[in-house]
Amino acid sequence: MTPETSAPSSPPTPGEVDCLVVGAGPVGLYQVFQLGLQELSCAVVDALPFLGGQCAELYPDKPIHDLPGLLACSGAELVGRLVRQLEPFKPRCVLGQEIVALAAEPDGRWRLGDAAGRVWLARSVVLAAGVGAFAPRRLKLAGIEALEGRQVWHREPRAGDSIGAVPWVHGGDDRALDAVTALVDLGAPVVHLLYRREVYPASAARVARLEGLIAEGRVVRHVGQPESLLLDDAGRLVGIAWMAADGSAPAAPASSLHVSLGLNPRLGPLADWDLGLARKQVPVDPATFETRLPGIHAVGDVCSYPGKLKLIVSGFHEATLAAHAIAHRLRPDAPRILEYTTSSARLQRILGVDATHAARDTP
Amino acid sequence: MTPETSAPSSPPTPGEVDCLVVGAGPVGLYQVFQLGLQELSCAVVDALPFLGGQCAELYPDKPIHDLPGLLACSGAELVGRLVRQLEPFKPRCVLGQEIVALAAEPDGRWRLGDAAGRVWLARSVVLAAGVGAFAPRRLKLAGIEALEGRQVWHREPRAGDSIGAVPWVHGGDDRALDAVTALVDLGAPVVHLLYRREVYPASAARVARLEGLIAEGRVVRHVGQPESLLLDDAGRLVGIAWMAADGSAPAAPASSLHVSLGLNPRLGPLADWDLGLARKQVPVDPATFETRLPGIHAVGDVCSYPGKLKLIVSGFHEATLAAHAIAHRLRPDAPRILEYTTSSARLQRILGVDATHAARDTP
Repeated sequence: MTPETSAPSSPPTPGEVDCLVVGAGPVGLYQVFQLGLQELSCAVVDALPFLGGQCAELYPDKPIHDLPGLLACSGAELVGRLVRQLEPFKPRCVLGQEIVALAAEPDGRWRLGDAAGRVWLARSVVLAAGVGAFAPRRLKLAGIEALEGRQVWHREPRAGDSIGAVPWVHGGDDRALDAVTALVDLGAPVVHLLYRREVYPASAARVARLEGLIAEGRVVRHVGQPESLLLDDAGRLVGIAWMAADGSAPAAPASSLHVSLGLNPRLGPLADWDLGLARKQVPVDPATFETRLPGIHAVGDVCSYPGKLKLIVSGFHEATLAAHAIAHRLRPDAPRILEYTTSSARLQRILGVDATHAARDTP
Repeated sequence: MTPETSAPSSPPTPGEVDCLVVGAGPVGLYQVFQLGLQELSCAVVDALPFLGGQCAELYPDKPIHDLPGLLACSGAELVGRLVRQLEPFKPRCVLGQEIVALAAEPDGRWRLGDAAGRVWLARSVVLAAGVGAFAPRRLKLAGIEALEGRQVWHREPRAGDSIGAVPWVHGGDDRALDAVTALVDLGAPVVHLLYRREVYPASAARVARLEGLIAEGRVVRHVGQPESLLLDDAGRLVGIAWMAADGSAPAAPASSLHVSLGLNPRLGPLADWDLGLARKQVPVDPATFETRLPGIHAVGDVCSYPGKLKLIVSGFHEATLAAHAIAHRLRPDAPRILEYTTSSARLQRILGVDATHAARDTP
């Protein structure tokens, strides 16, 4: 699977698919696999710039112990296994883009649009959106919104950001330390790093690199919690004041600020669609996992039904029943025969395996 | 897990468990694991003399391609993985015994009995019985029932069977060829083997062993379909008549017959319980997988609900929700908090893992 992460060439031609899967966490990935077994064309979109969703974002290295038959499988390993499993189907995959628009077409299809202007025409949709799209946790300070995109950013530094002579980074995780390095690489003479603790929740390699930059005088480190942004008469950012651990309240000049406080899930535009959301979950029919909008299904942590547990093992079942229901809806006259991958020549053909020469999971 | 296969020492003390799982196929095994996570004591019983159920019986070597994250996993490998996963819980496991009796106790528990006389007192029951208990396919010939256990058997030969001077085996699979060897080992001067084809659907090693026994004059092979049992005036088996491939109808003396025609699933006594069976499936509430009998749940291929698909991936979900529902029913006052194996110290303790030194699935 070769993910697309950049903006599309303009003007974009709508991507036409049997099913658009929104969310590339483990359940979204298995959804793609199950739709593939049904020989339905599909694409998958995720707000994160990588595959695996919450699983890859929040616990890539922590072992999961309750996946059937997979003892102590890390989130990253699970995602790798699922991606390998769906490879026969080569779905289109768009990462780092959130679906922001949903509208019904006269022919019964759904038109969906992402923030980069891509448009999808889908005969069915599966929301595998987990607890929502992961968005940067925002720093709350008076006047900060007006500076966003001009002198303040809640994303990694990029060439073209007007960082000025005294750029600051606020945060202490891997991404924050990467932002410091990026600003040094973008030519900043000195980068200021502000974080509430002296110990950084970042990889040892990144901390070592940071210590090196501090020793070289390329980075100045401050320990404290930002208190206010100092603005000039024209409303431009000129300094930052913070509360230090010793109770003092220092301030220093600043020409820009990149904030990196981690990611928070939010349901985003999905909350505005007419899905009858209750407690941030979408009610579904547990026989088909269809929402109250025809042709729009929901699986995994985002859906709810009597007995629902937010467990990956349930998401896999939900995705399977959703794929079968979608296939039945799109091909109402086809016979409903349950085929097994152990015995079905059709399934083995589309998976690219045959009974005698199948690639084995174990050596 | 050390399976019990012999009859219990008499008189048997009832086994008291929070939950008795009937069926040790993949879904039954995962059910034991999920009950273990809920810290409920449990035991598992299966009619087959080995773990894995249908999966191990019908397709031990065929790769399954649609298990989430397990590419091309054979039935035998899946069973091995599931057994390894439930090892922390060390459930009592009784194989080769069918549950034949079910009765409600005044205290709300269920009393279950197997054919060997074991008795269980269970606060809850999960039927993970698949398409039923696997029972030997029976040879249908006039008068055969009256001879069963005296001169005819539908199981492997055992010391004590009155095989006589001219024992016969009917069948051609691994078990049939093993029966021939067993009769030779039991001291039969010559064993007669009757099968409808010249080619045996058995392992190459077993066929080679058979050819050796034929060459030594210890086995006589016949090709044909049994037509009738020849009885003397006292109703004793004295001969077998069969239809040969060339259309002739020979007969020969016989003192006993071991039949090995494979296994057929049958629901057995379960069909007589008041479960409201429809199309050989037990209707359940898909929020709890409880049947219409309180405290008796059904998961996997044996259960039905709207949208049900007979797939292993669904069975895993069903077992998970059943375990949570049982825990809630048995501990109604405990808080219903969903814990994750990635983060819960309680779950990691009972699994015998800790976050830093967990055994990994892959090297």
